[in-house]
Amino acid sequence: MTDPASLADRVQEGELRIHELEAEADFDTAAEARRLLVERETDADLETIGDYAFPAERAEPNIENMIGAAQIPLGIVGPVAVSGGAADGDHYLPLATTEGALLASVNRGLSVIGSADGADARVTKNGMTRAPVFRVDGVAEAAETVEWLEANLEALREAAESTTSHGELLGVEPYVVGDSVYLRFAYDTKDAMGMNMATIATEVACEVVESETPASLVALSGNLCSDKKPAAINAVEGRGRSVTADVVIPGELVEDRLHTTAEAIVEANTRKNLVGSAKAGSLGFNAHAANVVGAAFLATGQDEAQVVEGANAITTMDTRNAEDGATDLYASVSLASLEVGTVGGGTKLPTQSEALDVLGLRGGGDPAGSNADALAEIIAVAALAGELSLLAALASNHLASAHEDLGR
Amino acid sequence: MTDPASLADRVQEGELRIHELEAEADFDTAAEARRLLVERETDADLETIGDYAFPAERAEPNIENMIGAAQIPLGIVGPVAVSGGAADGDHYLPLATTEGALLASVNRGLSVIGSADGADARVTKNGMTRAPVFRVDGVAEAAETVEWLEANLEALREAAESTTSHGELLGVEPYVVGDSVYLRFAYDTKDAMGMNMATIATEVACEVVESETPASLVALSGNLCSDKKPAAINAVEGRGRSVTADVVIPGELVEDRLHTTAEAIVEANTRKNLVGSAKAGSLGFNAHAANVVGAAFLATGQDEAQVVEGANAITTMDTRNAEDGATDLYASVSLASLEVGTVGGGTKLPTQSEALDVLGLRGGGDPAGSNADALAEIIAVAALAGELSLLAALASNHLASAHEDLGR
Amino acid sequence: MTDPASLADRVQEGELRIHELEAEADFDTAAEARRLLVERETDADLETIGDYAFPAERAEPNIENMIGAAQIPLGIVGPVAVSGGAADGDHYLPLATTEGALLASVNRGLSVIGSADGADARVTKNGMTRAPVFRVDGVAEAAETVEWLEANLEALREAAESTTSHGELLGVEPYVVGDSVYLRFAYDTKDAMGMNMATIATEVACEVVESETPASLVALSGNLCSDKKPAAINAVEGRGRSVTADVVIPGELVEDRLHTTAEAIVEANTRKNLVGSAKAGSLGFNAHAANVVGAAFLATGQDEAQVVEGANAITTMDTRNAEDGATDLYASVSLASLEVGTVGGGTKLPTQSEALDVLGLRGGGDPAGSNADALAEIIAVAALAGELSLLAALASNHLASAHEDLGR
Amino acid sequence: MTDPASLADRVQEGELRIHELEAEADFDTAAEARRLLVERETDADLETIGDYAFPAERAEPNIENMIGAAQIPLGIVGPVAVSGGAADGDHYLPLATTEGALLASVNRGLSVIGSADGADARVTKNGMTRAPVFRVDGVAEAAETVEWLEANLEALREAAESTTSHGELLGVEPYVVGDSVYLRFAYDTKDAMGMNMATIATEVACEVVESETPASLVALSGNLCSDKKPAAINAVEGRGRSVTADVVIPGELVEDRLHTTAEAIVEANTRKNLVGSAKAGSLGFNAHAANVVGAAFLATGQDEAQVVEGANAITTMDTRNAEDGATDLYASVSLASLEVGTVGGGTKLPTQSEALDVLGLRGGGDPAGSNADALAEIIAVAALAGELSLLAALASNHLASAHEDLGR
Repeated sequence: MTDPASLADRVQEGELRIHELEAEADFDTAAEARRLLVERETDADLETIGDYAFPAERAEPNIENMIGAAQIPLGIVGPVAVSGGAADGDHYLPLATTEGALLASVNRGLSVIGSADGADARVTKNGMTRAPVFRVDGVAEAAETVEWLEANLEALREAAESTTSHGELLGVEPYVVGDSVYLRFAYDTKDAMGMNMATIATEVACEVVESETPASLVALSGNLCSDKKPAAINAVEGRGRSVTADVVIPGELVEDRLHTTAEAIVEANTRKNLVGSAKAGSLGFNAHAANVVGAAFLATGQDEAQVVEGANAITTMDTRNAEDGATDLYASVSLASLEVGTVGGGTKLPTQSEALDVLGLRGGGDPAGSNADALAEIIAVAALAGELSLLAALASNHLASAHEDLGR
Repeated sequence: MTDPASLADRVQEGELRIHELEAEADFDTAAEARRLLVERETDADLETIGDYAFPAERAEPNIENMIGAAQIPLGIVGPVAVSGGAADGDHYLPLATTEGALLASVNRGLSVIGSADGADARVTKNGMTRAPVFRVDGVAEAAETVEWLEANLEALREAAESTTSHGELLGVEPYVVGDSVYLRFAYDTKDAMGMNMATIATEVACEVVESETPASLVALSGNLCSDKKPAAINAVEGRGRSVTADVVIPGELVEDRLHTTAEAIVEANTRKNLVGSAKAGSLGFNAHAANVVGAAFLATGQDEAQVVEGANAITTMDTRNAEDGATDLYASVSLASLEVGTVGGGTKLPTQSEALDVLGLRGGGDPAGSNADALAEIIAVAALAGELSLLAALASNHLASAHEDLGR
Repeated sequence: MTDPASLADRVQEGELRIHELEAEADFDTAAEARRLLVERETDADLETIGDYAFPAERAEPNIENMIGAAQIPLGIVGPVAVSGGAADGDHYLPLATTEGALLASVNRGLSVIGSADGADARVTKNGMTRAPVFRVDGVAEAAETVEWLEANLEALREAAESTTSHGELLGVEPYVVGDSVYLRFAYDTKDAMGMNMATIATEVACEVVESETPASLVALSGNLCSDKKPAAINAVEGRGRSVTADVVIPGELVEDRLHTTAEAIVEANTRKNLVGSAKAGSLGFNAHAANVVGAAFLATGQDEAQVVEGANAITTMDTRNAEDGATDLYASVSLASLEVGTVGGGTKLPTQSEALDVLGLRGGGDPAGSNADALAEIIAVAALAGELSLLAALASNHLASAHEDLGR
Repeated sequence: MTDPASLADRVQEGELRIHELEAEADFDTAAEARRLLVERETDADLETIGDYAFPAERAEPNIENMIGAAQIPLGIVGPVAVSGGAADGDHYLPLATTEGALLASVNRGLSVIGSADGADARVTKNGMTRAPVFRVDGVAEAAETVEWLEANLEALREAAESTTSHGELLGVEPYVVGDSVYLRFAYDTKDAMGMNMATIATEVACEVVESETPASLVALSGNLCSDKKPAAINAVEGRGRSVTADVVIPGELVEDRLHTTAEAIVEANTRKNLVGSAKAGSLGFNAHAANVVGAAFLATGQDEAQVVEGANAITTMDTRNAEDGATDLYASVSLASLEVGTVGGGTKLPTQSEALDVLGLRGGGDPAGSNADALAEIIAVAALAGELSLLAALASNHLASAHEDLGR
């Protein structure tokens, strides 16, 4: 009996386990059975959760125990006017969020950036990392292991790259703490965000380390990677893409469109994003870069928890004296560790791949890596727009009222 | 003409702006017109994005320029067995993610926790913060402002609380840096995550500060709040709920179900989560708490960008000698700054409110705040389950192969 | 036989242990015997180490196994022109250092500050902390302990203050991580730096905690104090004195005496001290405050290792438009955690107490605490002078050549 | 007239400035004249400050406006039993401090380490850094500058190394934040601490950068060096020497000599140094490494303000099962950024060079760098001894009483 109700019965009777339903029925029926089960055991009615827009089987690599889909409101901002190393021209950017006023705010910033002839953007560093931790007997063995590493990088490269057709090992950085040795492997993973590729490659490389040195693997990730944790190593050295976007906004535009002055925005940025963050012991010297990163990640199928690293951003604002005597505004945002991909992970899901199509960045780029670079640059420009808009709003002292108006 | 195609025409012809469509047509038609527009200008086909399961108008407080919804695969884990200050008993927890293997991993941990008679959990601190920055003439005025504050907390309380029927001002902490004075207001916002409430209340309190002291408001948020940035002030002092969950797993369970030993898990935790994070300059001493926090946030309508603060978590693991001579495992996770609510924000959206219904935590609690407390405790137990499961997997040295198997 | 040579013989023959010499002879003879011993066993000649300027017995509370004294070159800077909460007028400040050019640099800054009618300074926060860590069974007991604390602060105060005639308990902040509870006790220790006072008082308070709650003391210091470690908790919340000094330098002075402009100094400060430190993952947003703090600490008998906390400083520089149309420079330095005293510790030693006499701040102040406050304010002004001078030098791009000239 | 009183008169009469006295008289007379002046203008009597043990002229490269010397009590600890990469055998270590009980504590630890056949130590990384900050027009020029750098490292090496006979450029790491580019130069400075060498070499290299790229130098130090600030970049990547020392203490020794157990010490270390520091947002995961670093720095003529970086240390403690069934203690300390030298700076001063003679490490080593390596290793072992002793004391719960007894 593979109708949903019967399946639910069998789980309730203990004949089946809830994660085994896909073995008994197709994926959509299994999800329906689980919804039934949950509805019976709680007061919930899962109508909209069950009303998803794709065959459940397509989500198989992304979820277990599926009951449906979370639906997050999705809008578009743009055009994002960017002159980048990989991205160029005008793009619509889909953003998914539940935070009212966010898209309006980003759009206001993008509009001003567009009127200022667009933003520049560059990926200045790229490398997905995985850092296993090894146990050694003590510092003497640790030093021996580090020495071996420095002389045998090629052996590690060969092992690591044997697992991947695209990825390239960029380097391995050793760190010693007592009888623990951490090796931070960095890879160019092209258009993939690359955690999985980096993990698999590193696992094979670890076998070489274990066979050639006294070091024994304790954990394939030793937290110097560092994945999904707010860590200085990522803010300083980068992880995924390090990307910067900047723009010069003519003083006239600042006044006409942002209703404030370059000086006022610079003051707000310095006291809030620089000095305030300094006093807060922060790794994030920005206003709300994570809002834009998070909304773009959700829309385009990135790993939602890597918003953590996406928040490692520094916003700078400065006045510039224009030739016409005006005071222009230089604005930049530098995202140290933006982990994005256009292949793999959640990017293949239906709404997510449509969102990447809106950007023209679905799948692998030509050359390899250029699609992910372009995505990073576009997100950086959108983050810059968000910073500009919020700082302008703060400078005009109407943040709360904006929220009130927009029901945020 | 309010059919979608005509509206799209009018935008393309410059008669209408893309964010003005809701003034011309109902919300769903406006969204459809925008999809048409995007489809015309890009190579995208927005079929699944447009196939959302609710009237667009319901998303009005949450998004602008809506074109549809992002659909994130949603599954359930559980039962989450918790003995908390607010949560009690067994709960299914919906999680939305694109990261394969995550729910399976959390479920494995929850199963072991359940077999160990469940986890304890407590909210040990609660306060949503907003920290405006003021300009003063110099340190003499800064000191004067701080002194005034210490003598006039009641005046600030009265002003702040005049804006809210539920919120309570818990305190105001001053910080001086040169000619900038930051006042960190903390509120009990009950079942609301509370950023909006805190912002509005603080804005009114700021008027009192400005009228009674030499201080002038520069920005309603001065980044000592600190919202959506990885900041030590949140990791140390908390923001939203500070919540801890812990459990003692009998040694036998560790071996039978996690296929390793308490000692091996403790070693992996120490070398990775404690020493590795220390060496990484991290504020997150955990394995992947953000994964669980992020997935629960998406499912239940929390602010996705506040995953940043959710990653400020410390995981501890220790051996305990049982009376029967076995070596048990003590495991805990302490989330310093988990910002959750069961009212407001994204919690009213269709799939999100259904997910809260699964937990029995939709809307305000009785007493006020207890639903949000319970949600925090349940997420903490799920995060604990995720930590247990991943550390056990690392201890058994098969992280990469697990990912390979599960397509993660 | 208590002549030095015989004592040294006896140690070499194993009859005496090297730290027992003070039981056999007066302190100076004991030190001489140790020098002999070291000279016999190494190639060293300890002539100048043995040529110290005070009876060895005076150093008895400060050192064990004394062989003499380290002599650090000592100079004076000043006058330090300060208008503070406790300090007022002009002061010479003794500084001990081995870093050539430091005093010249500070003096240049002080001279400019003097010409600008002196600096303002204020202690805006004061509290010496000690944070024991307790073991509890789990989070339930942790929550119970925190609740007990909040209801029984007076009992802790009574216990803590029973150990001291001067100290006052200001508050106790609890922090929970799994089965560890940290209680951060903060004291007003008046003119003493106060670590010892805080430790003794906290030890007695811990006995109350242990007797009234399930918590067991693991360590009297649990590192949330945090003493002599670079920790955000100190940079954010302060430890010892939080002190700020600032000054407005007329544009003319900047040009005539610092040979640069306010704008150039502001740019150097922003790119280096704010943005550079941000990118470095730093808790120190200054140029070299530790140099001045360290040199003043050595000269006046402070704890040399607390230079670590003294480095938690933020320097801000901003332009100000003067009434005469000039662009003036606003400069400030805010030291979050300056731990100073004028009684106890090394302040009683001969050269150190003479140095405090130069400041007129030897011993207890009237009112109690005012001498330590004044010392903090004067050090802050000197640190400000050092920041001004170095930033001006960097702005004029001649740091290296200055070092070359001065042999630094 | 060059007698001190006349010189003092002339300064008071405004004929001479206080820093010009060395032009009128020999250095000792100049210092005496300054003392007179200070004595006249304050209530101080500078007898002991004036009673220094060396010709004032010898301190000329280290101080300006000299009035004498600060005398810091100096003792010895040891023997330090070390098996290092550069240091070997037993050494006395001179320590200068005003903190009573410190030498006794370190000595207790060293004695236990000696009984355990000594500690291992290794320098695992070495590089003195200087990181200038450049201004570019924007991110496009920043990317261009980074690309130029990667292709022209040899040109920078040639320029940098033209300034030094010993130093070697190890590498240059670029960091981009908006329109600021930071280049972190790392040098092997052999037996010199090397800040000066690194600064001079980098200044010349900067000229090449300025002439070949669009970048303009803003400040020769952009705080990514990072000197004398608590910065994650140093804790993660190291500065000066990264050095680790470790030892295995047999269980019997722990009980007999430290009066506690390996388990109790491990618990104290985990709850205090790892979890407590984690919760404090710290970069220092140790008990009091800065105490030992500071005292050794003062004694041997290191830069006292670099104690800040010396505090970037992680202490680990773990149990180890011995073959005889006992539970031994593994203890390590890893100092990430210990900046030491045996030539230059304060090392040539009289008491300081005598202290280096005690260690047999005065002047340049053979091979070059080995003396500074050995000094780093010996300090690391002493720091390990201090950690062991203090943790053992905390584990036995008698920190405060120890302080009381020893007058600390």
